[in-house]
Amino acid sequence: MSAPVAAALVPAAGAGLRLGGGTPKALRLLGGEPLLVHAVRRLAASAHVGLVVVAAPVAELEAVRALLAGVEGARIEVVPGGATRQQSVAAALALVPADVEVVLVHDAARALAPTALVDAVVAAVLAGSAAVVPGVPVADTLKQVDAHGQVITTVDREPLRAVQTPQGFTRDLLVAAHAGAPEALTDDAGLVERMGLPVLVVEGSPEAFKVTRESDLRLAEAVLAAQGAPA
Amino acid sequence: MSAPVAAALVPAAGAGLRLGGGTPKALRLLGGEPLLVHAVRRLAASAHVGLVVVAAPVAELEAVRALLAGVEGARIEVVPGGATRQQSVAAALALVPADVEVVLVHDAARALAPTALVDAVVAAVLAGSAAVVPGVPVADTLKQVDAHGQVITTVDREPLRAVQTPQGFTRDLLVAAHAGAPEALTDDAGLVERMGLPVLVVEGSPEAFKVTRESDLRLAEAVLAAQGAPA
Repeated sequence: MSAPVAAALVPAAGAGLRLGGGTPKALRLLGGEPLLVHAVRRLAASAHVGLVVVAAPVAELEAVRALLAGVEGARIEVVPGGATRQQSVAAALALVPADVEVVLVHDAARALAPTALVDAVVAAVLAGSAAVVPGVPVADTLKQVDAHGQVITTVDREPLRAVQTPQGFTRDLLVAAHAGAPEALTDDAGLVERMGLPVLVVEGSPEAFKVTRESDLRLAEAVLAAQGAPA
Repeated sequence: MSAPVAAALVPAAGAGLRLGGGTPKALRLLGGEPLLVHAVRRLAASAHVGLVVVAAPVAELEAVRALLAGVEGARIEVVPGGATRQQSVAAALALVPADVEVVLVHDAARALAPTALVDAVVAAVLAGSAAVVPGVPVADTLKQVDAHGQVITTVDREPLRAVQTPQGFTRDLLVAAHAGAPEALTDDAGLVERMGLPVLVVEGSPEAFKVTRESDLRLAEAVLAAQGAPA
């Protein structure tokens, strides 16, 4: 096995109040462990990933370091996050050595994204696509609604993909995309699109769903129980 | 408790080959029972629902009747389905007595749609909306891709809802929508939209997801295990 070629960034500095409870979203518990720990463990388990950089709330730096102390398979660094997600990604990116070829950006709320998905995204970047996002077909009929919930129209879902993370980039492209970013986006691939450069969608995973609401947390508990031991 | 005001139709005559395995999709096993049985049980458990009509493959009529013999809470009828989903809905609709106020159309693949969701859809129709569909916000960023998986653009997801079933209608409206349907649609609310009439989206349920692929079946097994005893 050659040396790991990839680093993974996890911006987790936001309050993420959608799950409520007063706890930062990334630190909400799933099967007794914070979402963040699940996410980082599955990134670090990839043979491609040698470094994981987490951007955490300034007040939580030591607590987050302690939480992640037991994660094996990669070096883990925790840095203070910025005021926006984009600033947190930039802060984490600053720690990535210049000889790292591939940089992943991952959302801790996709806590159960499997290591096989991490590997597939890295492989697609190594195969020549400088920006890669996992995506799945949209299973449900989509309707556009007005402010009152009345349907305006049914949307053609066939050409659409629901995209997930980790998103993968060559290090040079991600650095350039963030340097030139004119405004905050929640999606790093979107920065690349704004540059007019190609983004490839590869097959995502149903287990990489985002834990945003309490009901998602219940779904995640069920998936975790079915997965058995931590991946 | 007053008499049940609603009937539910379940078109389950299609081969539904996406799950593979040679078994009609609605008869694939989830926790040892066909998806169809899970779906019908949760419909019949609603105090609003007095009748469930299943449109089954002609070759499977007796088998489906036997499978559903143990379901309690509503009268269950099984009729031969048509060549298309729309014909199957029409065949099932023909069995609904004229004094039924509300007719639901449900997809057996949404096997774990909870009874509380069934109740909410009926309640919205009774409250004055003649066509009601459950829907959830789109959690993932949506990208439009070309035939090679290259991103064309990022889609604004804010006004979109991923719609589910059961969809609910006044009996008169559903009869009129099917009588006038010029072409096959997989979505009954779409027929109402084509008529230029309003469709209301009410809050859906994450457990009402569609079991289409093998990975969805694994997710459904996990959710079922977490739900405990059958609802």
